[in-house]
Amino acid sequence: MRERRDGVRRAPGRVVAALAAALVAAATAAQPLPSWNDGPAKRAIVQFVTDATTPGHPAFVPAAERIAVFDNDGALWSEQPMYFQLAFAIDRVRALAPAHPEWKDTQPFKAALEGDVKALAASGERGLLELVMATHAGITSDEFALVVREWAETARHPTLRRPYTELTYAPMRELLEYLRAGGFKTYIVSGGGVEFLRVFAEKLYGVPPEQVVGSSIKTRYEVRDGGPVIVRLPEIDFIDDKAGKPVGIHKFIGRRPIAAFGNSDGDFEMLEWTTSGPGRRLGLIVRHDDEAREFAYDRASAIGRLDRALDEAGRRGWVVVSMKTDWRVVFAPPR
Amino acid sequence: MRERRDGVRRAPGRVVAALAAALVAAATAAQPLPSWNDGPAKRAIVQFVTDATTPGHPAFVPAAERIAVFDNDGALWSEQPMYFQLAFAIDRVRALAPAHPEWKDTQPFKAALEGDVKALAASGERGLLELVMATHAGITSDEFALVVREWAETARHPTLRRPYTELTYAPMRELLEYLRAGGFKTYIVSGGGVEFLRVFAEKLYGVPPEQVVGSSIKTRYEVRDGGPVIVRLPEIDFIDDKAGKPVGIHKFIGRRPIAAFGNSDGDFEMLEWTTSGPGRRLGLIVRHDDEAREFAYDRASAIGRLDRALDEAGRRGWVVVSMKTDWRVVFAPPR
Repeated sequence: MRERRDGVRRAPGRVVAALAAALVAAATAAQPLPSWNDGPAKRAIVQFVTDATTPGHPAFVPAAERIAVFDNDGALWSEQPMYFQLAFAIDRVRALAPAHPEWKDTQPFKAALEGDVKALAASGERGLLELVMATHAGITSDEFALVVREWAETARHPTLRRPYTELTYAPMRELLEYLRAGGFKTYIVSGGGVEFLRVFAEKLYGVPPEQVVGSSIKTRYEVRDGGPVIVRLPEIDFIDDKAGKPVGIHKFIGRRPIAAFGNSDGDFEMLEWTTSGPGRRLGLIVRHDDEAREFAYDRASAIGRLDRALDEAGRRGWVVVSMKTDWRVVFAPPR
Repeated sequence: MRERRDGVRRAPGRVVAALAAALVAAATAAQPLPSWNDGPAKRAIVQFVTDATTPGHPAFVPAAERIAVFDNDGALWSEQPMYFQLAFAIDRVRALAPAHPEWKDTQPFKAALEGDVKALAASGERGLLELVMATHAGITSDEFALVVREWAETARHPTLRRPYTELTYAPMRELLEYLRAGGFKTYIVSGGGVEFLRVFAEKLYGVPPEQVVGSSIKTRYEVRDGGPVIVRLPEIDFIDDKAGKPVGIHKFIGRRPIAAFGNSDGDFEMLEWTTSGPGRRLGLIVRHDDEAREFAYDRASAIGRLDRALDEAGRRGWVVVSMKTDWRVVFAPPR
């Protein structure tokens, strides 16, 4: 008797909960992108998605062609004071240092061990490549993914004092979901390492591994005692940055996106390639102008430099998003 | 009045048609893979898919992990007496020959112009690469796709006397659709050129460009007067064959498939990589043993050689499909 009464009592509760959920869903559909302030940027996005998904509209796009590409560093999560993957590489040098006593006196390892970011930068592209090769290669892909996952659990951002995985942008995560709700296939197209990113992409952004395009080192298939493995080799395979981004898009996706989201000159060619296709297109640049909540940098920054793309945004019709005025919140609560 | 009567008359017809369609759909669901004869191969496929898609079953696999990879040449369409892409390259040499008088006396072009397949084969891998570079590079990706599309409209298979696009296997197309109906994401993983294949994959197999993995030449992003283009360069980027297949799968898909379908030793590593993962896996080899309806070849064939994979299929649990006894029909009607 008691059970039944409980059951009867609970049922209306469930109905109310379902109703509430439906109402929230309806409200979200009616008022998309709640983390965005009303303004030209949000309106441009909503207009574009609404038209692309409205059958019969002149700007309607068949679902299969609704491809949207997102840069990651500075567009989906922070990139200051250094790319998170560089922070990972430095931490990795420290972890591996006991087995490499020579690193104490060799650049760029010395700089990494001493946390000397200036000396690191001075080692140039070659130095950074050396760092990446020493810390990212020589193990299997499964082992590498495990190392990245463990690092992400303990590492903290030096100034924002939070796990790196909590430094994704809430408005951009909403945007990813909003596009997917409109039948878009969302891709990450990043200068960062594809195997580094794939560890995070599904959990943080809802983007599956097969929709992550990035820079890569070569790998080799090898059969070991325990079975076959993919071994990571100390050799660059592909640099997915600048003019490499349209090349990567063409290589991995094989069709031109209709929407692209970036934040720096490294995204210029991706934006250009995307928005110069026929029909209506959307190009968008996230501008870091919010020193209070995140960082403020553009033309003079060594990381995430935004100069040419900012100059040309107007005449190319690219939407420039001000983090300060367009975003109600910056960081997403942890997932 | 007349209109209305017609409308009334037509309505039951429409209802009958809809009912008939529903019945066919139900029958297909109940009896999947109608082009396959009942036998161990078909039963193994249906068992695998049924278990992988039954929640609560020990062999259940979440939808996101249902990745299936298919070789193309000899697994989805014919590959004798030569890979279709080689036939394309030879036709292309002929089309371009007027602008290259030197080809008349230079191998492998001379052999291609004379249709001398033996001399072509004798030119080895290097000769074939030269042929591919001369015929596949130097134009933009859009131009290349157009050339392939135009070729496919007029070219005919030398012995089967049909357009190449009509030489796909009906049972394999059914299998692709059956897997997709079970929530699988189907990929082509081919030694053939990715940009050649992408022209056909969506129309013939329902596989979108972003789910085609193949061999590639390098490309470059370039801004021309008419806007940006992707230019094809005469330099190999990636060979997606043998041990290159798991490397390609890892590079493009980023997770290990649970089902792999091939037909030759070139698929050995792909089958090995797929079926040595944890949990239930499906590896399948199409054996060309049907001289009457298609071709019969295996251990001694220069193209589609099937030797080691056949020897090891039994102990590795790979299903060997006999085209002769397992397939009710071979070729699909044109789409």
